[in-house]
Amino acid sequence: MNRILRVNARTGDIRWQSSCEEEQTWGGRSFIAHHFLKEVNPLCDPLGRNNRLIVASGLLGDTPVTTAGRISVGGKSPLTGGIKESNVGGAVGKRMARLGLKAVLLEDAPDTPTPRVLLIRKGRAELIDQPDLQGKRTSETLKILRKRFGDQSGLLCVGPAGEMGLSGACVATTDHTGVQLRVAGRGGLGAVMGVKGIKAIVFDAEGAESARPADRAALTAASRELNKILRDDPKTANRHNFGTPAVLSLCNALGILPTRNFRSGQFEQAEAISGEMIAELIDKRGGEGRKGLPCVQGCIIACSNVFADPSGKTTVASLQYENIGLLGSNCGIGDIDAVAELNHLCNQVGVDTIDTGAALGVAMEAGLLAFGDVEGAKDLLRQVGEGTPLGRIIGSGVVTTGRVLGVRRVPAVKGQAMPAYDPRSLKGIGVTYAMSPMGADHTAGNALETARSHDPLSREGQVEISFRLQIRGAVLDSLGVCLFIRPAFVKDPSLAARLLNARYGWKWSYTDVRNMGLDCLHTEGEFNRRAGASEAQCDVPEFMRTEPLPPHDSVFDIPKEDMDKIWSVQLEEDVF
Amino acid sequence: MNRILRVNARTGDIRWQSSCEEEQTWGGRSFIAHHFLKEVNPLCDPLGRNNRLIVASGLLGDTPVTTAGRISVGGKSPLTGGIKESNVGGAVGKRMARLGLKAVLLEDAPDTPTPRVLLIRKGRAELIDQPDLQGKRTSETLKILRKRFGDQSGLLCVGPAGEMGLSGACVATTDHTGVQLRVAGRGGLGAVMGVKGIKAIVFDAEGAESARPADRAALTAASRELNKILRDDPKTANRHNFGTPAVLSLCNALGILPTRNFRSGQFEQAEAISGEMIAELIDKRGGEGRKGLPCVQGCIIACSNVFADPSGKTTVASLQYENIGLLGSNCGIGDIDAVAELNHLCNQVGVDTIDTGAALGVAMEAGLLAFGDVEGAKDLLRQVGEGTPLGRIIGSGVVTTGRVLGVRRVPAVKGQAMPAYDPRSLKGIGVTYAMSPMGADHTAGNALETARSHDPLSREGQVEISFRLQIRGAVLDSLGVCLFIRPAFVKDPSLAARLLNARYGWKWSYTDVRNMGLDCLHTEGEFNRRAGASEAQCDVPEFMRTEPLPPHDSVFDIPKEDMDKIWSVQLEEDVF
Repeated sequence: MNRILRVNARTGDIRWQSSCEEEQTWGGRSFIAHHFLKEVNPLCDPLGRNNRLIVASGLLGDTPVTTAGRISVGGKSPLTGGIKESNVGGAVGKRMARLGLKAVLLEDAPDTPTPRVLLIRKGRAELIDQPDLQGKRTSETLKILRKRFGDQSGLLCVGPAGEMGLSGACVATTDHTGVQLRVAGRGGLGAVMGVKGIKAIVFDAEGAESARPADRAALTAASRELNKILRDDPKTANRHNFGTPAVLSLCNALGILPTRNFRSGQFEQAEAISGEMIAELIDKRGGEGRKGLPCVQGCIIACSNVFADPSGKTTVASLQYENIGLLGSNCGIGDIDAVAELNHLCNQVGVDTIDTGAALGVAMEAGLLAFGDVEGAKDLLRQVGEGTPLGRIIGSGVVTTGRVLGVRRVPAVKGQAMPAYDPRSLKGIGVTYAMSPMGADHTAGNALETARSHDPLSREGQVEISFRLQIRGAVLDSLGVCLFIRPAFVKDPSLAARLLNARYGWKWSYTDVRNMGLDCLHTEGEFNRRAGASEAQCDVPEFMRTEPLPPHDSVFDIPKEDMDKIWSVQLEEDVF
Repeated sequence: MNRILRVNARTGDIRWQSSCEEEQTWGGRSFIAHHFLKEVNPLCDPLGRNNRLIVASGLLGDTPVTTAGRISVGGKSPLTGGIKESNVGGAVGKRMARLGLKAVLLEDAPDTPTPRVLLIRKGRAELIDQPDLQGKRTSETLKILRKRFGDQSGLLCVGPAGEMGLSGACVATTDHTGVQLRVAGRGGLGAVMGVKGIKAIVFDAEGAESARPADRAALTAASRELNKILRDDPKTANRHNFGTPAVLSLCNALGILPTRNFRSGQFEQAEAISGEMIAELIDKRGGEGRKGLPCVQGCIIACSNVFADPSGKTTVASLQYENIGLLGSNCGIGDIDAVAELNHLCNQVGVDTIDTGAALGVAMEAGLLAFGDVEGAKDLLRQVGEGTPLGRIIGSGVVTTGRVLGVRRVPAVKGQAMPAYDPRSLKGIGVTYAMSPMGADHTAGNALETARSHDPLSREGQVEISFRLQIRGAVLDSLGVCLFIRPAFVKDPSLAARLLNARYGWKWSYTDVRNMGLDCLHTEGEFNRRAGASEAQCDVPEFMRTEPLPPHDSVFDIPKEDMDKIWSVQLEEDVF
């Protein structure tokens, strides 16, 4: 997995390169960080010619390690103005692995983008004009691509929102069965891809084979150990049965479930949109509904679902916690079928559910529609796809929506909407939102897992917690594995190093792995500084420091000065 | 002029204070800079509770010096995120002077703003609910206020755009006759006022008298000398006869007149919208049309006009260069009556003509309407006033418009639209746009005046030129006088110090005055740094560095590194 494909979206020039020695130690998120700092003008316009869109494999991408095969989509974000990595499962990673592809780099942009497909096969790649894909929704696009380029390919595409260059646009992909629509949602990277005129990328790995690991026996052994720890961990079964929505009841109990534009941390209809309810409905309704599906082939956790309507016909797959939190409780919507439909609509027009759900909440706060107005919300999402003025506002994300509609209560940090954990009652994640180079992104360091062992309302120790979690997040995103395998790495901190050593023949220790994570964060931070990011803007929004959040009536009260010291916190123990 | 009025827009608390010794040396723009650095959290949300709206008199505000009586409106800008001072003539300054008011500070904000009028009389002030003013356009608001509070009052108000908190909103006022509508346009300060629920401020100076100068004879002598130099300067007569539109032909000749969203620096219909044409039409049409009016009582330059339609009925007063450049050539509109109408509409809904004209140009580039489509442009401005989604986009300024409509060619720096001088062929002003704490604002340092003596296409010496002009701009804005009296200060650099000494009994030299300007710039810069501004973002937009501008096919090519050294440039000569 040492090939890099450079595609100039303006000139059509395509070049294959071999990664240099330094690049070989980068993967996924860390590849993006280092590549951007090395080659991309940090002051570039995110939607201009000098930004890049990267699709990168993780370091374990071509191994059979469970969950490995997630990919990192990266670029300078039109929302945050800083570097952004958005991580997604699906079928692409395994195809990239077989093609030996460490990364695909989309460079430059045409003056007038028209839809093209980048088709990558073994040893060759080409840009193909596909004008009939213009404005097509994601599922229809993917269906056409499967027909044209074979259903064994890995696919990435943007929806109409990405083509329009809307800052809330996402990049969509599917699992290997084509049933699930998976999304690299955060940061507006769909707009970066869209303005380059690349409607889709097709990874056809026919005839290609993955590289052999340096020590197959050691890789198998470490991989088995990983699986055993995961299988023994009760969280794994819980995730398998209930998926990410499993945490909704917990978040509601903790009082951090965003409700009606982050006015409350508890939602009176939480039960109706909970993971338990979803599992029950899937079981009861039958039909196309499914639980316990993997998003990456070979994942033993398999936390995804297919959510079907009462008649058993698929509404959306997979229905996940963040989407429910933002499109459901945050919009005052307690009807899980309605939430699933809204989720589906976001996917189809190709916008991030988090920024869009937050934008809908702000539109409701503005009085444009009432909280709980499902039909109104659906209409707004349709308008995003149609590119009406109002649709474009919503599709540009929560900050633009707040600005244009005149709403002050905007749940965002540095241009990007907050995920479904209110930081006033889960303070550790507030530190991550404020300080992470990724902006408000729960996957960058979610303190929810510490909520039982460490009082989430206390302001003590949260900076350290966030720092640890941020390092771990950067490691996992660079390996190309799922955050949900962390119990194995926590139990055996040497495991990640052993997996890497077996794959590459390195002699890394736990400390080397941790330093890789740290180095990734510092590299991203340095890019952001050069891009003009200021520590001054690293904070939760003003209202969260003053407006008490029911039920705990808590405010976010970690002093800014304490957060500013995060990068010099001394961590004494193993970080995983 | 040592009184400061603090009004809490949330609690209704009103306090009169006397300025402390330090504050007495601040005026207008420098008062705003120092006050903000001293008292306002630089990280505050510009449209939140912690921002302030300041109306400040200049240091010469209560003297009979010609043009003195301009006021500074200030706050943290919702467009730039930094400090902003917007300078305007009209009748308020003279009333503030008689009331002894150095500054009015609007603090805090109500949760739900409803229209109130701040009525300031001799020794007392009150907030009065005026719900019937809600949503009223500026001229109607001012007419009602004159009826209610007397036609001798000085008035400030916001239009519907300010009430909606749109980032492109301005603060409007009138001259002492009520004929002209003058505007503190830049930076979106109308939104800052609007979200505080202050629809208008009425300055009723009845029974009040200005303070006496320390040395009336010296003040009169210096003032007369100033007037003599101005009268002897040929630019004064030119301004009197043709107003600011006098420069349009020059700008077109230099190739810096923004045309069709800054695609060209020359407009084929320039003659039809020139100062000469306006003067000719005013003369020919008669009726209400006028030339040579003062905007501040007692101004001997008197460069304002009343522009009337063919039937002699007023369309707009005053019609000025920036408005013509942005609403005319930049929108491909060569019909001066149409430009005047668009100008009038901007004034009425209460938005900055520069940011709004640039937003219209971007909307035209987006294909929403054609360049030159007058009726389409009028409709969009009406929509701003009505608060439709599209109207709100346009009313939020050019950067939001570009973001939402998917346009990359956005003529703005740090969130604020460029005035009507394309920096690719007037490079000195590009340095000002990039580096001034005010963002893209021609009044912060307009290199146009150097275009004859210093090649505007050369990149040599432009950083020094901008620095000099920025210092002078800060001085003039702190004195409360017009930029157009600079010929007198250039001819006799000691004049400003002599005026100040005569007024206050100080012993300032030319150097002290210059240092006041420098200190103002540094104070603003420090506030912006604390607000999270980064030098990295101090540059012209990307396209201006790569896309050649006809007719000179020039790009902006002053190296960023050279611009970054601006604050340490050594100026050897007198700066004025």
